[in-house]
Amino acid sequence: MSKLKSLVREAIEEIKPYVPGKPIEEVERELGITNVIKLASNENPLGPSPEAVEAMRNMAEKVHMYPDGNCYYLKRRLASMFGLTKNNFIIGNGSDEILKLIAETFIKEGDEAIIANPTFSEYTFATQLMGGKCVYVDLKDFRYDLPAMADRITDRTKLIFVCNPNNPTGTIVTASEVEDFMRRVPEEVIVVFDEAYWEYVTSEDYPDTLEYVKKGKKNVIILRTFSKVYGLAGLRIGYGMANSELIEWINRAREPFNVNSIAQAAALAALEDQVHVRKSININNESKEWLYRKLEEIGLSYVPTEANFMLINVKHDSRQVFQKLLERGVIVRTGDIFGLDQYIRVTIGTLNQNERFIEALQEVLKELEQ
Amino acid sequence: MSKLKSLVREAIEEIKPYVPGKPIEEVERELGITNVIKLASNENPLGPSPEAVEAMRNMAEKVHMYPDGNCYYLKRRLASMFGLTKNNFIIGNGSDEILKLIAETFIKEGDEAIIANPTFSEYTFATQLMGGKCVYVDLKDFRYDLPAMADRITDRTKLIFVCNPNNPTGTIVTASEVEDFMRRVPEEVIVVFDEAYWEYVTSEDYPDTLEYVKKGKKNVIILRTFSKVYGLAGLRIGYGMANSELIEWINRAREPFNVNSIAQAAALAALEDQVHVRKSININNESKEWLYRKLEEIGLSYVPTEANFMLINVKHDSRQVFQKLLERGVIVRTGDIFGLDQYIRVTIGTLNQNERFIEALQEVLKELEQ
Repeated sequence: MSKLKSLVREAIEEIKPYVPGKPIEEVERELGITNVIKLASNENPLGPSPEAVEAMRNMAEKVHMYPDGNCYYLKRRLASMFGLTKNNFIIGNGSDEILKLIAETFIKEGDEAIIANPTFSEYTFATQLMGGKCVYVDLKDFRYDLPAMADRITDRTKLIFVCNPNNPTGTIVTASEVEDFMRRVPEEVIVVFDEAYWEYVTSEDYPDTLEYVKKGKKNVIILRTFSKVYGLAGLRIGYGMANSELIEWINRAREPFNVNSIAQAAALAALEDQVHVRKSININNESKEWLYRKLEEIGLSYVPTEANFMLINVKHDSRQVFQKLLERGVIVRTGDIFGLDQYIRVTIGTLNQNERFIEALQEVLKELEQ
Repeated sequence: MSKLKSLVREAIEEIKPYVPGKPIEEVERELGITNVIKLASNENPLGPSPEAVEAMRNMAEKVHMYPDGNCYYLKRRLASMFGLTKNNFIIGNGSDEILKLIAETFIKEGDEAIIANPTFSEYTFATQLMGGKCVYVDLKDFRYDLPAMADRITDRTKLIFVCNPNNPTGTIVTASEVEDFMRRVPEEVIVVFDEAYWEYVTSEDYPDTLEYVKKGKKNVIILRTFSKVYGLAGLRIGYGMANSELIEWINRAREPFNVNSIAQAAALAALEDQVHVRKSININNESKEWLYRKLEEIGLSYVPTEANFMLINVKHDSRQVFQKLLERGVIVRTGDIFGLDQYIRVTIGTLNQNERFIEALQEVLKELEQ
């Protein structure tokens, strides 16, 4: 690699190479198992809204045309839904892409981004890609420590990422915590609230960050997604909301046709089917309570969650637990990648899926304790 | 904007702001017209393969799952098709995205990219985004001037973009021209052959750039797409082929789920339907010949094309011609954005669409000549 390496940007050298996994079908074939359930990526176990499916099927014959590069109808709908204007929105190929666009717009070499540890890994990726410096602040009791994050603000701070609810812990920062925090954040520092899981939140203390955008505050960006409760992860579509000036700058880093037309049509239809959203949230709440009870019965501790996943302390090496669960056809996420070696992160599934998971987990723990 | 402006990267300031167009439906409503035909974006007028449509519809219910981040099956299929390995491929959210990834991987501040003028605008965008310097080399008789491009190579040259066939002229560089050119390109300079329209080429002098990749040459990247002859522009999927080491570096700039699952399924199915591809090419060839004849009858000159679009000299301000064509329900591309004020670029449509276009064009020119 040596010769090519000298051609590559330093920032790229520092990014961990991507290690691709295999499709579930290949894993099933190799392990000789079938009917695997994936509780690893916080997807909606009910699938997409039937209305979204219908919209996708209707769009299928028209995909020879380029998508609407401006996502006109989707922005219009979101704007009316949230009391904003079309100019307050950017639509991305997943909110992942918007994170990258934000870094491309604002991170100058050596700029700092304040990032919790552990949290969603894309904040680090986007910052590193643009040659920024990641300043990590540990969680406190599995929650974002906003005062400690504010303490780390310097002249070089450009971005602060707040994942709320946080992935992988499922915890939130409250309205009053955010208020105190924002009072300490200078105008030149942009705060990105990543609210991918906000629809699942049941706590009444969850902050209304939209108020910052409505007041025209120039340093707040809110990210949301159709990948979670809307069940459209495979289509890649998320959105950002911010002051129109911020949006205008970020838009310059965007390629003209970044959001595919089936995703646009499906998202629009999914927004209309709030019955499906409500049903998805209700099942998540029921399943969550059921899992809480079961885990208490088994004697495992967990982090109470405001999202559609939860961290469970399995009291053993999480990679071992992962492997043994996989052999039983249940895919979860190991905690070691988050520095939580004895934890697994499990997506809250349907009641059936949860039963299969708990059954498999009990078998695995029994085996490991022998 | 002043306060925010100081936060933005200089490279972003230099990018032209994106001016979003309206969806066709909105244009129709505003102009009070219907049945608009769009010959502006070089789309396949036959639409996607019915097999691809079927694959999309089958995938619709499964989009709550994240896509395969490695595009395993598609890479495997492409690899066997071209006699390469999976590691020689990168799949992008359109080849647009791959262009951005290439710049993100290789363009250090101040690096130079050699770019023809006029050509596809995304080369400039990607280079500028990463703070690179665009070194422009004019076309000669509407064709890439590869010797002149080689003359401009310096110590700072990092990338050279070769759009072949070229957009917007439809002309190609030949095998022997590419051979002479590559002999002059040092190993440290990466040549990107953008072959989005290669399936349409009828000339026997078209170069086989794949040979460079097969020989393990480290400085060649070939870009192709499913947006043109495969009729999947709306889904956003394109691919890059290169030495596996190059691919590995570029992959580091990629987000893990950049290609949606419907696009992956549709692309795979579309590859299997080579009858549809053949039919699309045949219609393009027939329509092209028909347009050549008609234009000669009318007395308009054009640039003979190896793609699915052509440049026509309309002998009037192309923006005027554009507007008057639009009022008649025909959307084309004006040449002024390419520095060709009296030219329009027209996608070769079905025979029906071409008839409508020629009829409208004759009316428009008559009106302008009065």
